[in-house]
Amino acid sequence: MSDYKNIKVIGFDADDTLWVNETYFREAEETFCKLLSEYETPNKIDQELFKIEIANLELYGYGVKAFILSMVQSALELSNYNVPHKTIENILNIGKDMLNKPVELLDGVEEVLKLLSKKYRLILATKGDLLDQERKLEKSGLTSYFHHIEVLSDKKEVNYSRLLSHLDIEPSQFLMIGNSLKSDVLPLINLNAHAIHVPFHTTWVHEQVSDKETNGKKYKTIKSLRELLKLLD
Amino acid sequence: MSDYKNIKVIGFDADDTLWVNETYFREAEETFCKLLSEYETPNKIDQELFKIEIANLELYGYGVKAFILSMVQSALELSNYNVPHKTIENILNIGKDMLNKPVELLDGVEEVLKLLSKKYRLILATKGDLLDQERKLEKSGLTSYFHHIEVLSDKKEVNYSRLLSHLDIEPSQFLMIGNSLKSDVLPLINLNAHAIHVPFHTTWVHEQVSDKETNGKKYKTIKSLRELLKLLD
Repeated sequence: MSDYKNIKVIGFDADDTLWVNETYFREAEETFCKLLSEYETPNKIDQELFKIEIANLELYGYGVKAFILSMVQSALELSNYNVPHKTIENILNIGKDMLNKPVELLDGVEEVLKLLSKKYRLILATKGDLLDQERKLEKSGLTSYFHHIEVLSDKKEVNYSRLLSHLDIEPSQFLMIGNSLKSDVLPLINLNAHAIHVPFHTTWVHEQVSDKETNGKKYKTIKSLRELLKLLD
Repeated sequence: MSDYKNIKVIGFDADDTLWVNETYFREAEETFCKLLSEYETPNKIDQELFKIEIANLELYGYGVKAFILSMVQSALELSNYNVPHKTIENILNIGKDMLNKPVELLDGVEEVLKLLSKKYRLILATKGDLLDQERKLEKSGLTSYFHHIEVLSDKKEVNYSRLLSHLDIEPSQFLMIGNSLKSDVLPLINLNAHAIHVPFHTTWVHEQVSDKETNGKKYKTIKSLRELLKLLD
């Protein structure tokens, strides 16, 4: 299709684009709320944890380790420093369980990557922990379709700009595919690169964007990665 | 010099090669020992923390966040789940302080990078957290000398092999410079790439290697990065 005729490199977001991720964070938050239920309502616990995660974001970045550290801090504060020590140990173990989860591929992923990797250079572009993402990629069996993993400390215009210069390609030669409008789509459109949105059923509050931000921006939304094959044919 | 005549890309380790790092971990460990001094001797605390760090290494990887999580776990276990809650908060704060430290450049770093960046493509090759390393690079004022940062989940042969294929160069065209024989030198020599060792005064036990491992391996050791200029002239 003419829109995409210049594409040389396709970047795939990993979490919630290739495999399930956010679901595990939601489950961990539910367990966390239960562990602290004697101190606060689930609603209040959710709010406080989110507040602390955002306050720590600049220092800790994204990923499971940052999430565990914020849960430990939240447990101390929410319980007014009374939380049982075993609960803190439980929180550390929630994190270890998350890091040990099997990888659950989303619909059509392997088929689509297999076909696209014959024509394009595919990279995995993620802002999670490299170790965690490498582990998931290995478990997924998808390693051979990707040229390499690009870890971005954040997914803003400046990060993608650096990525393009590192890949030595023009914006018009790059297509990004992911579930987050904020992280995988809008920054690319602003750089005159291409982006396709594949929504996942759950989006972390921090990744949500208003209609105003997407207004007038030119990108396609697809329901399943399978639709890529038609678009890029 | 003829040994290095094919070099196109030079990889620099960051922590303890360009700037002080291990010193801050040692200081954090000392503080940690003091915080737990009512439960165990410093020697025992050091040993237990190291044991837990190594047990968590595969899951957590390297970097400050992994270190904080292991300290929290060690504090729970060493105190037999009696450690005051404020001590756990203190441990979280030790970690935040580490992430907020100013960057202290080692001798000659800026001068050497400035000159080498005119002739070679320089990359930062690190196994720390990307966010933390990007932040340090920014604070260091050295950003403009590097083409980009490569984050490796580990620094073994397989990781460097992937890096070389990603850079699209032959082993003989790559020179790695760093303070760790285990991570920055030996894997490269085994791949027939080049490596130069610049020791730092402190080495984490996990990074130490025996004479047997270095026996017969061909690499140069220099005392200061300044000596690079002569070697690569």
